[in-house]
Amino acid sequence: MAPQLDAYFKQVEASSEDFIERLRKAVAIPSVSAMDEHRPDVVKMGQWLASELKNLGAEVELRPLGKQPHKEYLDLPPVVIGRYGNDKKKRTILVYGHYDVQPALMEDGWSTKPFELSVDEKGRMYGRGSTDDKGPVLGWLNVIEAHQKAGVGFPVNLLMCFEGMEEYGSEGLDDFINEEAKKYFKDADAVCISDNYWLGTEKPCLTYGLRGVNYYSIEISGPGQDLHSGVFGGTTHEPMTDLTKVLGTLVDTDGTILIKGIKDFVAPLTDEEKSLYGDIAFTMDNLYESLGSQTGIFPDKERTLMGRWRYPSLSIHGIEGAFSAPGAKTVIPAKVTGKFSIRTVPNMEIDPVNELVIKHVQDAFSKLNSKNTCKVWCQHAGKWWVASPKHWNFTAAGKAVEHVWGVKPDLTREGGSIPVTLTFEQATGKNVLLLPMGSSTDAAHSINEKLDRRNYIEGTKLLGAYLHYVAEEPMEG
Amino acid sequence: MAPQLDAYFKQVEASSEDFIERLRKAVAIPSVSAMDEHRPDVVKMGQWLASELKNLGAEVELRPLGKQPHKEYLDLPPVVIGRYGNDKKKRTILVYGHYDVQPALMEDGWSTKPFELSVDEKGRMYGRGSTDDKGPVLGWLNVIEAHQKAGVGFPVNLLMCFEGMEEYGSEGLDDFINEEAKKYFKDADAVCISDNYWLGTEKPCLTYGLRGVNYYSIEISGPGQDLHSGVFGGTTHEPMTDLTKVLGTLVDTDGTILIKGIKDFVAPLTDEEKSLYGDIAFTMDNLYESLGSQTGIFPDKERTLMGRWRYPSLSIHGIEGAFSAPGAKTVIPAKVTGKFSIRTVPNMEIDPVNELVIKHVQDAFSKLNSKNTCKVWCQHAGKWWVASPKHWNFTAAGKAVEHVWGVKPDLTREGGSIPVTLTFEQATGKNVLLLPMGSSTDAAHSINEKLDRRNYIEGTKLLGAYLHYVAEEPMEG
Repeated sequence: MAPQLDAYFKQVEASSEDFIERLRKAVAIPSVSAMDEHRPDVVKMGQWLASELKNLGAEVELRPLGKQPHKEYLDLPPVVIGRYGNDKKKRTILVYGHYDVQPALMEDGWSTKPFELSVDEKGRMYGRGSTDDKGPVLGWLNVIEAHQKAGVGFPVNLLMCFEGMEEYGSEGLDDFINEEAKKYFKDADAVCISDNYWLGTEKPCLTYGLRGVNYYSIEISGPGQDLHSGVFGGTTHEPMTDLTKVLGTLVDTDGTILIKGIKDFVAPLTDEEKSLYGDIAFTMDNLYESLGSQTGIFPDKERTLMGRWRYPSLSIHGIEGAFSAPGAKTVIPAKVTGKFSIRTVPNMEIDPVNELVIKHVQDAFSKLNSKNTCKVWCQHAGKWWVASPKHWNFTAAGKAVEHVWGVKPDLTREGGSIPVTLTFEQATGKNVLLLPMGSSTDAAHSINEKLDRRNYIEGTKLLGAYLHYVAEEPMEG
Repeated sequence: MAPQLDAYFKQVEASSEDFIERLRKAVAIPSVSAMDEHRPDVVKMGQWLASELKNLGAEVELRPLGKQPHKEYLDLPPVVIGRYGNDKKKRTILVYGHYDVQPALMEDGWSTKPFELSVDEKGRMYGRGSTDDKGPVLGWLNVIEAHQKAGVGFPVNLLMCFEGMEEYGSEGLDDFINEEAKKYFKDADAVCISDNYWLGTEKPCLTYGLRGVNYYSIEISGPGQDLHSGVFGGTTHEPMTDLTKVLGTLVDTDGTILIKGIKDFVAPLTDEEKSLYGDIAFTMDNLYESLGSQTGIFPDKERTLMGRWRYPSLSIHGIEGAFSAPGAKTVIPAKVTGKFSIRTVPNMEIDPVNELVIKHVQDAFSKLNSKNTCKVWCQHAGKWWVASPKHWNFTAAGKAVEHVWGVKPDLTREGGSIPVTLTFEQATGKNVLLLPMGSSTDAAHSINEKLDRRNYIEGTKLLGAYLHYVAEEPMEG
């Protein structure tokens, strides 16, 4: 039986100006985590958030995370954790978001002041952090407030985890989550993260997968120092010659990874999964628009989405140690380091992939018969994440989307990684759902970041509706 | 009949402290042509040189070269041109050198103050410009002075051309030489340049050849802007993938150029030329020491010297537009430009080589079937130079070396280019000789640049002896 949400929805409509005012206050605090001089603003933002939550009757704690690694003079901003409701008969949902933002300066090209919310005639609410991630975080506060004002019972217990370092590597958070999984977060039945975006602008989605990334360096060295190509060209093995040849063996122009064995790890495409792609609201023009070119590998949407979400890819990022400036320099670089990474998907485990990559590079280099020296290593690796979209957590969210937006959501994955997702899944052992509020045009991390008023208000309805459907889902699913 | 040089040599010995004092004064003027703030010092150095020449009775002119291209607020330093002697019955030798120097700062790691000549117990005279090229330039002044003091008749007419921008691309000089070839320099019977170095430390050499260089850029572009490899990896053609593959087709690890047709241009090795390499004072240890590694391509001296001097080579210098910093960045660069150059030798002409290179790159790229765009062009080119070492100019220098040093000089070529050499040859139509004064350990362009007292004093003897032998050579040779 569908939950009765009319009273709640009406209240969200009635409070919408208050909710926008709340977002305005949040955007006005320049909580830029990457800039030392804004650290007090990040802390202030955490304190403001905690105080808003307290005013709504939630239990709140500001948990310190210690000093910032490599910047021991800086305290990390606290994690804001909270609880709203403590009824053993209700499900408990753990929600995550972040209250820090990317840097933003007028001289970067903003059309409005980045730390003043500016709403235009189309309801586009411009401001740094509007969509990433202050809007979604405040969405949860709005949900609580609207229930209170409408006199509607809160359907679940809510656990909250809002961090202040997401835009700077989530320093300290993994340890904290692992530590609290069986303590503060122990009651969580499922996790919901609202920190990504719709695939397009019109159709909501639920996100159930992310690719991982293994990042590699190949260092090839020979001469003791950079050499003059006039004096030494033709007499010595040159590291750049070897490196370009080795890099050239990794991937084909059409994106096929040439490292033997990699594709054997990739989970086969089932008919069921294949059938999911056809309905997704995405067109090749969407791709070309975001590329700024027509250089797509595949002519069709299905194969393009699979290329982004469910197949691995290999990108060569650049070379350290070679000549990289404009102009001409006749140098033989003595030591060059090629950087590339592989986006990983089920069932590519980190270590076996590393083994294949390292063996491939070593073999490719040894075939050259060079007197230079080659080292290859994995700089860092983060695993892919795929959740079951059949879990009640997803089913509830899907019904909520249909209720609020009148359409079934697209079930999407993403090509990039949101490492905290996997951390929550592994630490809690519970299903994690990515439930985005903003749309693909919100320009997170760019100038003129915005959140549409529609997405903020309907998104607030959606977060509340999701909690009601969660409460009604059967235990198994 | 060998000229009588004893009186001249004795005078050089007797004046050696004065000559070192002259070098000390020259080194003390920091005539760094690459640094705007030292431009007045460069001009001062030119004026000092002109005044020294006037004191020796030479005719001297300071010729302006106009404004510095791209730095219109700076006057180029003048070319110092001069004539000593005007006897129609004598041969006329045009000598070239430069009075500007490379930058030098104590914090670069100098052991002594770079602009104070410091002579150690082994007679090593440290100071910026000591060997490159103030010592050799002053050598000609010393020759004049020693002849005057010894009362020995000057054997030739001397034309001089000393520039102040050699370390910054010889701005303005080519036009000047072309202009004056049939005017101020019209009487020149041959040219002598002292601005290079012995191959080792013990045996003098005469240099009769230089490689040229054609410098290329390959630009591959696709997306409208840099992309995130998580979001777009696996969906778009990536310029770096294509560029590494194209660069990988240019040259083998063993230095073999893979561009079809290039080797057909290379003049075949004759038995006569081959026989020249065996006697040259050079060992594989010399190579390994200067490489700082044992990564030489060839196991033997002969093939190594040929690789440096008489065969072409191809070096890949680097990539502009890709990620080149330390660390990890998950970028798909939108436009990348690979830079490489080919050292050219007889009979590789600039245009036919360019045609082959451009065709090769275009073919290699088109085989990739990429949707990216590839452009390739020659950034700049300078031709190789090879003179006849049988010309009387070389014969005279060879006899002078034997007279002063007691050994026949090595006949060498160089892998790098000294563009002014070819300019003088083409503008005057006369034979050009490179007659080095310093040795391979002089560290020109590096910290702790030095000229050995022995090389300076014996070198002064050599320059004078060369002029005497020039006067005695038969016209044909």
